[in-house]
Amino acid sequence: MKEEKVISSHYGEGGRLKKAADPLLVNSAYAHDCNDADILLSSLATANIAHLLVLLKGEIIPLSEGQKILKGLLKIKEYKQKEFVLDPANGDIYNNFDVTLRGLIGEISGWLHTGRPRREAVNVSFLLELRKQFLVTIEASNNMLKALIKKSEEHQHTLMPDFTYLHHAQPTSFSHYILTFAFVLKRDLERMIEAFQRINTSWGESGSVNGSSLPIDKKYFAKLLGYKNISIHTRDAMWQPDIPLETMGVHISTLMNLTRFSEELQIWSTEEFGYISLPDSLCRASVIMPQKKNPYPLTYFRGLTNSMTPKFSEYAAHGRIVSGNPDSRIFIYGDLLKNMKKFCGGMNLLEKVITEMEVNVEKLRNKITNSDAYATDLADFLIMTQEINYREAHHIIGKINREFIAKGRKLNSLDKTFLKKIIFNHTGKKIKINKKDLKKIFDPREVVMSRKSLGGANTDQVKKMIKTLKKASRNNNKFIKSEQKTLIEGDVFFTQEINKYL
Amino acid sequence: MKEEKVISSHYGEGGRLKKAADPLLVNSAYAHDCNDADILLSSLATANIAHLLVLLKGEIIPLSEGQKILKGLLKIKEYKQKEFVLDPANGDIYNNFDVTLRGLIGEISGWLHTGRPRREAVNVSFLLELRKQFLVTIEASNNMLKALIKKSEEHQHTLMPDFTYLHHAQPTSFSHYILTFAFVLKRDLERMIEAFQRINTSWGESGSVNGSSLPIDKKYFAKLLGYKNISIHTRDAMWQPDIPLETMGVHISTLMNLTRFSEELQIWSTEEFGYISLPDSLCRASVIMPQKKNPYPLTYFRGLTNSMTPKFSEYAAHGRIVSGNPDSRIFIYGDLLKNMKKFCGGMNLLEKVITEMEVNVEKLRNKITNSDAYATDLADFLIMTQEINYREAHHIIGKINREFIAKGRKLNSLDKTFLKKIIFNHTGKKIKINKKDLKKIFDPREVVMSRKSLGGANTDQVKKMIKTLKKASRNNNKFIKSEQKTLIEGDVFFTQEINKYL
Amino acid sequence: MKEEKVISSHYGEGGRLKKAADPLLVNSAYAHDCNDADILLSSLATANIAHLLVLLKGEIIPLSEGQKILKGLLKIKEYKQKEFVLDPANGDIYNNFDVTLRGLIGEISGWLHTGRPRREAVNVSFLLELRKQFLVTIEASNNMLKALIKKSEEHQHTLMPDFTYLHHAQPTSFSHYILTFAFVLKRDLERMIEAFQRINTSWGESGSVNGSSLPIDKKYFAKLLGYKNISIHTRDAMWQPDIPLETMGVHISTLMNLTRFSEELQIWSTEEFGYISLPDSLCRASVIMPQKKNPYPLTYFRGLTNSMTPKFSEYAAHGRIVSGNPDSRIFIYGDLLKNMKKFCGGMNLLEKVITEMEVNVEKLRNKITNSDAYATDLADFLIMTQEINYREAHHIIGKINREFIAKGRKLNSLDKTFLKKIIFNHTGKKIKINKKDLKKIFDPREVVMSRKSLGGANTDQVKKMIKTLKKASRNNNKFIKSEQKTLIEGDVFFTQEINKYL
Amino acid sequence: MKEEKVISSHYGEGGRLKKAADPLLVNSAYAHDCNDADILLSSLATANIAHLLVLLKGEIIPLSEGQKILKGLLKIKEYKQKEFVLDPANGDIYNNFDVTLRGLIGEISGWLHTGRPRREAVNVSFLLELRKQFLVTIEASNNMLKALIKKSEEHQHTLMPDFTYLHHAQPTSFSHYILTFAFVLKRDLERMIEAFQRINTSWGESGSVNGSSLPIDKKYFAKLLGYKNISIHTRDAMWQPDIPLETMGVHISTLMNLTRFSEELQIWSTEEFGYISLPDSLCRASVIMPQKKNPYPLTYFRGLTNSMTPKFSEYAAHGRIVSGNPDSRIFIYGDLLKNMKKFCGGMNLLEKVITEMEVNVEKLRNKITNSDAYATDLADFLIMTQEINYREAHHIIGKINREFIAKGRKLNSLDKTFLKKIIFNHTGKKIKINKKDLKKIFDPREVVMSRKSLGGANTDQVKKMIKTLKKASRNNNKFIKSEQKTLIEGDVFFTQEINKYL
Repeated sequence: MKEEKVISSHYGEGGRLKKAADPLLVNSAYAHDCNDADILLSSLATANIAHLLVLLKGEIIPLSEGQKILKGLLKIKEYKQKEFVLDPANGDIYNNFDVTLRGLIGEISGWLHTGRPRREAVNVSFLLELRKQFLVTIEASNNMLKALIKKSEEHQHTLMPDFTYLHHAQPTSFSHYILTFAFVLKRDLERMIEAFQRINTSWGESGSVNGSSLPIDKKYFAKLLGYKNISIHTRDAMWQPDIPLETMGVHISTLMNLTRFSEELQIWSTEEFGYISLPDSLCRASVIMPQKKNPYPLTYFRGLTNSMTPKFSEYAAHGRIVSGNPDSRIFIYGDLLKNMKKFCGGMNLLEKVITEMEVNVEKLRNKITNSDAYATDLADFLIMTQEINYREAHHIIGKINREFIAKGRKLNSLDKTFLKKIIFNHTGKKIKINKKDLKKIFDPREVVMSRKSLGGANTDQVKKMIKTLKKASRNNNKFIKSEQKTLIEGDVFFTQEINKYL
Repeated sequence: MKEEKVISSHYGEGGRLKKAADPLLVNSAYAHDCNDADILLSSLATANIAHLLVLLKGEIIPLSEGQKILKGLLKIKEYKQKEFVLDPANGDIYNNFDVTLRGLIGEISGWLHTGRPRREAVNVSFLLELRKQFLVTIEASNNMLKALIKKSEEHQHTLMPDFTYLHHAQPTSFSHYILTFAFVLKRDLERMIEAFQRINTSWGESGSVNGSSLPIDKKYFAKLLGYKNISIHTRDAMWQPDIPLETMGVHISTLMNLTRFSEELQIWSTEEFGYISLPDSLCRASVIMPQKKNPYPLTYFRGLTNSMTPKFSEYAAHGRIVSGNPDSRIFIYGDLLKNMKKFCGGMNLLEKVITEMEVNVEKLRNKITNSDAYATDLADFLIMTQEINYREAHHIIGKINREFIAKGRKLNSLDKTFLKKIIFNHTGKKIKINKKDLKKIFDPREVVMSRKSLGGANTDQVKKMIKTLKKASRNNNKFIKSEQKTLIEGDVFFTQEINKYL
Repeated sequence: MKEEKVISSHYGEGGRLKKAADPLLVNSAYAHDCNDADILLSSLATANIAHLLVLLKGEIIPLSEGQKILKGLLKIKEYKQKEFVLDPANGDIYNNFDVTLRGLIGEISGWLHTGRPRREAVNVSFLLELRKQFLVTIEASNNMLKALIKKSEEHQHTLMPDFTYLHHAQPTSFSHYILTFAFVLKRDLERMIEAFQRINTSWGESGSVNGSSLPIDKKYFAKLLGYKNISIHTRDAMWQPDIPLETMGVHISTLMNLTRFSEELQIWSTEEFGYISLPDSLCRASVIMPQKKNPYPLTYFRGLTNSMTPKFSEYAAHGRIVSGNPDSRIFIYGDLLKNMKKFCGGMNLLEKVITEMEVNVEKLRNKITNSDAYATDLADFLIMTQEINYREAHHIIGKINREFIAKGRKLNSLDKTFLKKIIFNHTGKKIKINKKDLKKIFDPREVVMSRKSLGGANTDQVKKMIKTLKKASRNNNKFIKSEQKTLIEGDVFFTQEINKYL
Repeated sequence: MKEEKVISSHYGEGGRLKKAADPLLVNSAYAHDCNDADILLSSLATANIAHLLVLLKGEIIPLSEGQKILKGLLKIKEYKQKEFVLDPANGDIYNNFDVTLRGLIGEISGWLHTGRPRREAVNVSFLLELRKQFLVTIEASNNMLKALIKKSEEHQHTLMPDFTYLHHAQPTSFSHYILTFAFVLKRDLERMIEAFQRINTSWGESGSVNGSSLPIDKKYFAKLLGYKNISIHTRDAMWQPDIPLETMGVHISTLMNLTRFSEELQIWSTEEFGYISLPDSLCRASVIMPQKKNPYPLTYFRGLTNSMTPKFSEYAAHGRIVSGNPDSRIFIYGDLLKNMKKFCGGMNLLEKVITEMEVNVEKLRNKITNSDAYATDLADFLIMTQEINYREAHHIIGKINREFIAKGRKLNSLDKTFLKKIIFNHTGKKIKINKKDLKKIFDPREVVMSRKSLGGANTDQVKKMIKTLKKASRNNNKFIKSEQKTLIEGDVFFTQEINKYL
């Protein structure tokens, strides 16, 4: 005769634990988990089915029970997020799933716990979701790369001052300027693809810290979920704090680069600069000031960057805990996936800003035309033709510039007679310079075209760079397509295997 | 007649700037730079020589002046760090170098400023130093990998409890346990090598933001300094905030993984655990408590990890500034290189702890022999042989365990009669189990050997994993050697080119 | 004849903005806001009513319209969170509130926007919620203080080893040990109360950055919401990034202190230490290992600390943005309030652990009885009675200890003959020591009682400290009660004023 | 006969530890300490003298030895930093001090270790240095407050556009604008003073974790070093991680506030804005671009802020370690003090920028005169006089503005006939407005003067606020003076007590 007919729905209660969870535990830790990890529910259903198939293949659990469990799991897999009520009183999402399944099919659901710790179940769900979301990240980033290239192509003849310290540096083209950010993004995309290949590894069916004595089949499990690589060491597979860390790291790196540009766009959108303007549909009205049209996406992108930036350090803090603790699962998994979604939202938004912003070509040209930004070219001329060393040339031109400013003059109003006189006074040298030389030095287009060295602003150089970037972008596209295809093929095998038991 | 004979040693003073730097600027910003960037001095000499060779090859500056400058630079290159006095009154290290060179060879040193901004000079120095130091990092990490493998090999038969939440989980071997950290390190070494290949790129001779109109030769410069890759886009080459970010990221990741273990070792070194002890030469005496032998290296390693962890976020904050600003140069370059040195110091220290610590094999075996850690194996037995589902098995064994604890008994004191009775009471099932079965379940060696699934604790599995890791470690070694060789070959070419002008 | 009858529900559309918000803006920035700031909805209703009363009092808007708006607002105030559907397509929560009110009462709702920017409305809501939640924080922290005091009182005679580096230091009582954390908490409560007084300031009715030309009454507004202090400068009142920063700072400080203890409890709960055990209702079962009873609250508390720790830096990053930007509103307000709730959940949970954990008094006593932790007292004896300097005493005892360990002996097995001999060998001195002296040195109770200096482990000292702490805790209670009373009185006046217009 | 004549200079060697420290330990951990904690050397001498006086007063050590030690300590106290060679081979700074003293006076120096752990010695040194440096911080911050007030006073009639999102918001005065930052700083100074009072507490003569059995006198020690408050609980006094955390927190808060302004100044210093310019002595020349005059102090201040911002989180990470560990000593003490010095350097520099920058009064006035920033006042007029609700008024004016922009017109070119027509078209209302009304609405001075509500831009309001701030600044001054006086008085007593033994 049985002593206890019913095992409590609170896993462990009545067994190892005399009592169910205290409400304070439910309302803090379990509530946190239910709220945070809800994003894993759908992939947990997938992970459970794959685990069940392994148990069935290994004949570890009875066939007829397995078949009933499979039906229950397939039903739950169809649930939409809202239908699946997570109740902290049941514990975390693993326990909630268990309660739901048990509610559907009864006690036999207990077989599903065989040979797999909670951590592994959640790990597998996390990695499935991470792989899916990471491909979205790569695609959004590659789209951004394309948008930068396209904008560069459109503005090959848009002259403007280059900036350092937000002050005018030298003449350049918008086309060359904007590629600054494309080249960093190209490297970030390389990092993403390298990281993706590391996260695209099956952690499942390790069994437990020391492995399993049951006939579970890691390779079959990996194949079911479309993995080519397997994480070998069972204890390593249980906790890989380096994986979310690297993932977050490359997201932050990408945000950092694009915020550099986005911040600049915000300044360029002021009345004082007036270099760009955003379409109305990407702005927000003020409530009190009727004239205002706030460049909200740029602010949002900056805030998003600042809100994600500390997460690398946070994840490292969760990850550095004595091995065998669940911190990363509780505090990283849901957080990372949600932030990756925000990342993609932010990237798509900024991409649209970059694509649709109006560049005030005329204002940019006017700014550079009448400017002090020719000082370097003037110095280069002196050293190349007049044997004046750079320190001296710098000194003389800097002084002229300072005195001009006091008189409200720009450097390009300099005439050859004055220049000759000044240089003679300083160096005792009689220099040779004609009007045409000076005109060339003070012509922004001439200056830009003179930057013929590798990677410079000269149009041909820019075209070559655009070609390089386009090739990179096409290769990234190929990678994305190929990985998407692999996932679809994986699904086919998974479905075939499920069908064997239906 | 010349108006001014002397150009101030404060670069720009008398030219663009009417006055020299305010003492408040000197004592804050410039003092910071001199104190922080001193680590770059030797490579700045190299960078300057390489730039000079480019100027000479392009016939941009007069040959005779160039030859004199070369001699001055070679003299400075021989300076030891202490000889080179950095005076904030002169500005940052670039300006201090300038003042030193001018002191040696006079006004002609002014030619060296030709065609190169301050940023580029410091960038090149930074990257030279970074490449050198990164190889040291990779070597230190690979040595750590070897130490972990070696310790694992030594303890293939050391049985112990595996832990989760610091509580006994299941029987394992020390050999399997310690490989947890080796597998993460293997991935971190992959990341390091990928990152190294990205940082191993010449940023030099970009000229300025928009490039250069002078006949400078990027490829020749790269060859002089032993670079195979060149950073193309000139404005990208000026600021690559992603490079120090990625470098710091992989260092933090590595520390995080090893701190997980180091923290555990600290706990294991307590009297209560007593699983390991450190040699005296790696401990520190208390000043007041004569009996104390503090495991200082473990504390230091933890603190080092905690002190470096926030730096990724910090570097991203410096890097996200509107492009064209010097923040990363001022606040990252020196800091990163100094932290990389600390990283290597910490790694070498921990490697020695791991290599030399005494593992209390007997205590570990005793702990696991008389333990509750066999509960999973008991449950596995019930589901595989008695058709009891896992939730039920878990419930029954958990309850037995709870009741045993109240009586001060360990689970492995369970006898078959009692087990049979309990199971009958709970399930109504009469199970079949003999003494031999139970003995096997409660034998740590049997349990460990039963973990035959891929990556489990079974000795053969562990041997295979050690083989995999050794191969990885050998490949890392090959990479290091090959890169070191490239550097040496680069030096040969550099010297040849210098000799052309002596 | 009117040109346009309908003003779009998208604020600004058709007016300053030609088009409504792009879906990419809606799905990223606005979705973020709706998801994050939902916690402010109820207090936004309050803020709106208070603003309306100011408009009515100043006769700024027509009375009859005002009365209708008031009815609408009171209706919305009754909504439960779930009833209030936030639709990102409408914008942020301010705009959603507007759409809801307009849906209820029509176009006249437009009067409510008078004289108040979006930022101010949200600021006021935030500060109302912050004040409420901060009192909960202070109460939870003061409850923790009481729990620590109580536990200390219970264990005045529980002897144990004190620890440094997790190694045995000197004999102490659990009573003294646990007060370590109470004294830090006392300081954190001081900080909380100071910070509370700064956040308890009305920011409302500033009007806009430069103030307002309308007859709005800041003091009346403050009184309506129960504020005694007013933030004067209108532009300061719009953005006070220091307020959330300080608030988060003191929460992190408190978590840091208690995690120090919580981490120790986790180690003490291991089988190896076995100093405490948690009640079953505060543990979680493993899914796979039936014997496990994981101290989940301690893990959760650590993770909570690690997840909140980087937020100070994050908030500072949002706050350091060029003034006049909305970053703190978008990324801090909701986040801070939600984290404060988590903080209180975690504190309550840990308080329960501390209150209910079972302290293994006997094991603690056994550990200290047979120990090396008497070395300091032995050294003190030598210097006080035998004129041996501390370095020498330390050296001799350290050496004895080292040799004893090699023989498996504890220091308290030392006999006087041996001691005399050793000291003679080392110093040439014949020391006087009798059996009774040695016995006292090696008796934990004697040692603890000898710590009579201020703040030491001696029972009388501990009693005095408990008295000090109890007084502090009572004063904190008084503060909480008094503030709660003020809030209630504020509500009475608020209701009276509302009733004037009903 | 003595067995060993010489006790090794490596503390503990030959005693508890068989061997001296491994070179790897010396070159990592000890080298870090010597490099980091050198800033504590002078105060360690003071701390040692005070401890010695306590030992002498309690007759704990022999008088004659004590007198000799005192002479040695006084000699070391005179050392300049450079004279005191810290050799990592000796250990940390405590051990190096020991070695130096022993070198001077021989074996009797061993008495100094009596009754005091290493931690306490370093703690006391740290707190002495912290108190001194914190007063410098408060003074630098109060000087900044005065500079802001002064600049505000100078520009009471400087009209300018206020900004949100860096876009023109409403007319204001520079005087009102700049006070934004003064009010936050006033609160930060409150926080500093509160924190100062908490750190101004004697931790000394706790003895050890559990107190001391020796007749040490905490109160006498406190008086010697000029402390009025004493940290009671001995174990609390050993580790107070909250103290450096709070200190760093308030420094970061202050930097955050001032960086908000500093960033704005950087944008205002661009050619496009041209609102301010920095004196040459606060700028840096470019190496390559002769025309550039870079606002280096603003960049440096931003970088400083970004480099200190993550330190709060870092310190919390060091502080959250299991109690009884030395992490905070090794990684926080030196770092905090050095960063406080950098903070003061940065504050003084920025103060000078604010004081000496030239404000382009004319450009600011021109910008606001011809502007769209009058839209709010126009809307306010409509609601107050024409019974048009705010949403409608906003809609109409926003639309006018949008259409004007398309035609290149500013809002203040609006004439009353057109306005009447538009409003009639939209609302069907015939509004009353005359030329004078419109002129007032579009007059920046009138607008600013109309902000008469508490804290607004009206000149009288600004004067009142300046008065409030001046009072606060005077009170801060009084606090600083009074604390400085206390320190000097403390020194007198200290010297008297020293003289008793000379």
